[in-house]
Amino acid sequence: MAELGTLVLLRHGQSTWNAENLFTGWVDVPLSELGEGEARQGGRLLADAGLLPDVVHTSLLRRAISTANIALDAADRHWIPVKRDWRLNERHYGALQGKNKKQTLDEFGEEQFMLWRRSYDTPPPAIDPKDEWSQAGDARYANLGDDAPLTECLKDVVERLLPYWESAIVPDLRAGKTVLIAAHGNSLRALVKHLDGISDADIAGLNIPTGIPLRYDLTDDLKPVKPGGEYLDPEAAKEAAAAVANQGR
Amino acid sequence: MAELGTLVLLRHGQSTWNAENLFTGWVDVPLSELGEGEARQGGRLLADAGLLPDVVHTSLLRRAISTANIALDAADRHWIPVKRDWRLNERHYGALQGKNKKQTLDEFGEEQFMLWRRSYDTPPPAIDPKDEWSQAGDARYANLGDDAPLTECLKDVVERLLPYWESAIVPDLRAGKTVLIAAHGNSLRALVKHLDGISDADIAGLNIPTGIPLRYDLTDDLKPVKPGGEYLDPEAAKEAAAAVANQGR
Repeated sequence: MAELGTLVLLRHGQSTWNAENLFTGWVDVPLSELGEGEARQGGRLLADAGLLPDVVHTSLLRRAISTANIALDAADRHWIPVKRDWRLNERHYGALQGKNKKQTLDEFGEEQFMLWRRSYDTPPPAIDPKDEWSQAGDARYANLGDDAPLTECLKDVVERLLPYWESAIVPDLRAGKTVLIAAHGNSLRALVKHLDGISDADIAGLNIPTGIPLRYDLTDDLKPVKPGGEYLDPEAAKEAAAAVANQGR
Repeated sequence: MAELGTLVLLRHGQSTWNAENLFTGWVDVPLSELGEGEARQGGRLLADAGLLPDVVHTSLLRRAISTANIALDAADRHWIPVKRDWRLNERHYGALQGKNKKQTLDEFGEEQFMLWRRSYDTPPPAIDPKDEWSQAGDARYANLGDDAPLTECLKDVVERLLPYWESAIVPDLRAGKTVLIAAHGNSLRALVKHLDGISDADIAGLNIPTGIPLRYDLTDDLKPVKPGGEYLDPEAAKEAAAAVANQGR
């Protein structure tokens, strides 16, 4: 069997709603200027490491798409094939979409807040299709039918992500390609949970920093050669992960 | 048979080398700030016309890729599927790549200059693979083998473009999609020549303006319903085409 390609995960940089401390989910906000800079830096890290993607997979959300565009341009790989799928989207945050994280914490208390943010199988309340932050009627999800979520817990994300991993990403890796996935905090946590075999309980403690490429070399049976992979800038990754864990405080 | 989709052609906005009046061809220069603005305006014209692409095809060159990214973002269609192919690239300008247009005009005279720029079947001299503006060794063309050009006339562009038109773009149109092609002055002239059945002599006089979407509705046998298509901003298109015709003066 040919050697497996290399997997590279890239979480999008800061969005305007990250900057305002709002729950975003499937709301299609743009990167902030800081987030654009993070994406450029992510691309420079790829180029400096000689880790040049042959193909990129993105979600259908602007902040991941722009991150891929900017990072690939910075790495001079803007011309590679692109694949997009809703299964790489951020976790749908249900009725919390558009709400301030601090206010939600104050209103519902620490226990409920952390349950919604980090429990594996407790989704927030479903969003009302008439809510201004609902995706009802969004053309890009028109063909999903009953698959279109109104809220999701991380378990739901794992379940809708894995069919795309198997059908679209694994074949690229089996073809020996360097595969970049530009996606989101929770869709990437879902993938890392699967790859590293992290338990439902332990995944709560895992935070993936923004803008720092995370490299996974994989064995023939798709297990990480090194558990947890390797960040291209390990020091920055450690600092950034700590900052994410403190969001909403 | 289902109704054919709509074809929309978009020539990239000003590049840094357009601004410096250099022959560009396959040299992978970025858009200028003006060119980025043209792309945004192109996207707004698409949105205002309700002409929303379902799929985009680009060349492998940054100025067309960025134009597509910016225009689609402005039209809120950044999430559509993307296909890229070298067959949509600008004409390879051979040994003229990197040369100043005005200096080339002065050095070789009006007749030779216009022959290289506008004759249908006279390519400029081939580029030396060791020339600093050669694409020898560029990873994105590594699999082209003998197809990789060292120079091209417009006839060559027509010949290498049409297989992609038939195999990749026509199927999207037959599927009823609105298809955006973000490409270049000469690859779009080659396509328009084919669509409108323009003669080898008459194509010399056709200039396609930058940043203004050109819409073609097509009959079942892929003929334009209206010869020449329709620009989304006809007044601006007329002015811009006149300006292009005067390049190098």
